[in-house]
Amino acid sequence: MEGGERAVLARLMARLPVAPGGAGLVTGSDDLLAAERWAGDDAAAVSVGGEILLLTIDTAVAGVHGDLDVLSVADLGWRAVAGAISDVAAMGGEVQHLLVSVVGPPVTDLEALYDGVLGAATSHGAVVVGGDLSTGPQVVVTVAVTGRMPRRADGRLVRPVGRDGAGPGDVLLVSGPLGASGAGLRLLRARRCSLDAGAHDDRGDRAEAAAMEAHRRPLARLGQGAAAARAGASAMIDISDGLGIDLGRLADASDVGFRLEDLPVAPAATEDEAVGGGEDYELVMATSDPDALYRSFAEAGLAPPLRIGTCVADRAERTLHGRPLGAAGWEHPWH
Amino acid sequence: MEGGERAVLARLMARLPVAPGGAGLVTGSDDLLAAERWAGDDAAAVSVGGEILLLTIDTAVAGVHGDLDVLSVADLGWRAVAGAISDVAAMGGEVQHLLVSVVGPPVTDLEALYDGVLGAATSHGAVVVGGDLSTGPQVVVTVAVTGRMPRRADGRLVRPVGRDGAGPGDVLLVSGPLGASGAGLRLLRARRCSLDAGAHDDRGDRAEAAAMEAHRRPLARLGQGAAAARAGASAMIDISDGLGIDLGRLADASDVGFRLEDLPVAPAATEDEAVGGGEDYELVMATSDPDALYRSFAEAGLAPPLRIGTCVADRAERTLHGRPLGAAGWEHPWH
Repeated sequence: MEGGERAVLARLMARLPVAPGGAGLVTGSDDLLAAERWAGDDAAAVSVGGEILLLTIDTAVAGVHGDLDVLSVADLGWRAVAGAISDVAAMGGEVQHLLVSVVGPPVTDLEALYDGVLGAATSHGAVVVGGDLSTGPQVVVTVAVTGRMPRRADGRLVRPVGRDGAGPGDVLLVSGPLGASGAGLRLLRARRCSLDAGAHDDRGDRAEAAAMEAHRRPLARLGQGAAAARAGASAMIDISDGLGIDLGRLADASDVGFRLEDLPVAPAATEDEAVGGGEDYELVMATSDPDALYRSFAEAGLAPPLRIGTCVADRAERTLHGRPLGAAGWEHPWH
Repeated sequence: MEGGERAVLARLMARLPVAPGGAGLVTGSDDLLAAERWAGDDAAAVSVGGEILLLTIDTAVAGVHGDLDVLSVADLGWRAVAGAISDVAAMGGEVQHLLVSVVGPPVTDLEALYDGVLGAATSHGAVVVGGDLSTGPQVVVTVAVTGRMPRRADGRLVRPVGRDGAGPGDVLLVSGPLGASGAGLRLLRARRCSLDAGAHDDRGDRAEAAAMEAHRRPLARLGQGAAAARAGASAMIDISDGLGIDLGRLADASDVGFRLEDLPVAPAATEDEAVGGGEDYELVMATSDPDALYRSFAEAGLAPPLRIGTCVADRAERTLHGRPLGAAGWEHPWH
């Protein structure tokens, strides 16, 4: 089988039945059109009892999604939870319940792993309502998440934001500077090498410490996603594999191209890390009304989103500072 | 870490926050008391928009939960889905959505695996709404399931049935004869050996073929679970690890003992397989009103449940035909 795992997954998911009304709208039992979305977006959106329920599952494999030379199993547990919750953030939802399955060899420090899982759950306002535990050769943490769309003051449901709604001329913004997680991984590895060489443990400056923390203990941008959804963002995705890859997915789904003029780089990060480093979990948002987005972020007490460029009609045009932006992000091989 | 994986999981889950009102009742936003149950039962039950949502996650590891010498990867996918859905059946719920995460080495035949996943989903009336795919050294299939409690004709929600409601004097019944899956595994292994020895492929009689099918392609007892819940069963659990272990869990949670006088053994199965063989996914039900249970099964067009014994006040008494019933089921070691 050829292609990255997302391509394989897309092909497998294409065999699934389509949501009622396709990717379109079904009339909710409530006061608002509820958009049912199944496989193919960050999370599925289904209607249950007049609410829009968001459902997503995400797996972290030790050695693939986390380097246990520089991360603890507690970090791995945390990252699995944060990564799964980020898919709810990318739809604009509130997180509710987590189900956590752990596979690992009998020597695994499960107490530490659950410390990370529960720490991340608490930090995101989620609750673990169930789990499973199995023996296996490698640590695998799978997290399923339920979320729901918030309601406006007048009781109307906020619509989930898919990847596919961006149009030509829409402004593109990110919820914060990029590359911190990638920089953190580089710094953690460098520190590990210098520790191995017997060097003094110099944790570096505050920006470097923040980058390492961003890699070890990422936080999903739930507040920012909800603010974008309330402001009617046309499309949104979380940056889990890198801006190049994830913005490419949004553009593919929306059938647009993009022209980026700005790239906000996190302190301690390089421009390459900002484009290609994954696991930042910042959000990329498209909107035809950026002022509404700025207002919504301000009303929620959040730092303003950062404009990076615009969507264009030519889907072949994908540039940063006028040069082609390769999908220099990171994708697991699957062939 | 000592003890079976369920004991470890129980200890980890004991660290989780408790559902509002403990294992007790919270007033639903609807017309009925909604029982919120979190970790500790077959599935968590949470209230969403006036509905009771059931949530559960289950993982199948190749070589641990399925012997790939006698099962195909399609079988493994099917079994993972059926096993996860069975937890919804054991609460009396209807299954709705599945999220499926697959980890495996790049050589894994994903098309075949998804054939099994989708076949099982369709056979149980469930829909796969999302998934994830990762590389790893061993095939691991994790299935998260949402279900919901049905409503009665008058609109009232049926209450989810936990493990902990059985009382002394309650009658114990199973939804069908036991041991087919264990017998099927034995027969599949024997056939494999005779095929390896160059023998003619004699698939045996119909009972043996049915047992092998029960092992390869189990079906959750959704109809039976819902019928038991409608009839007000006091406690219920699915037999995933064997009658000895699973009835022991129901008795532990309900703080009762049991006295079994009958053991319905599936055709082609031995008595040991009926007691200790797991993965039958038949349900064990306790009720103070067995006539209501028989009526409910008949109204649903189901074969009547089979009485196996009664619950007793002395939780130390756990007997079959007057002899102690050991937990001769199967549990993964975790130490």
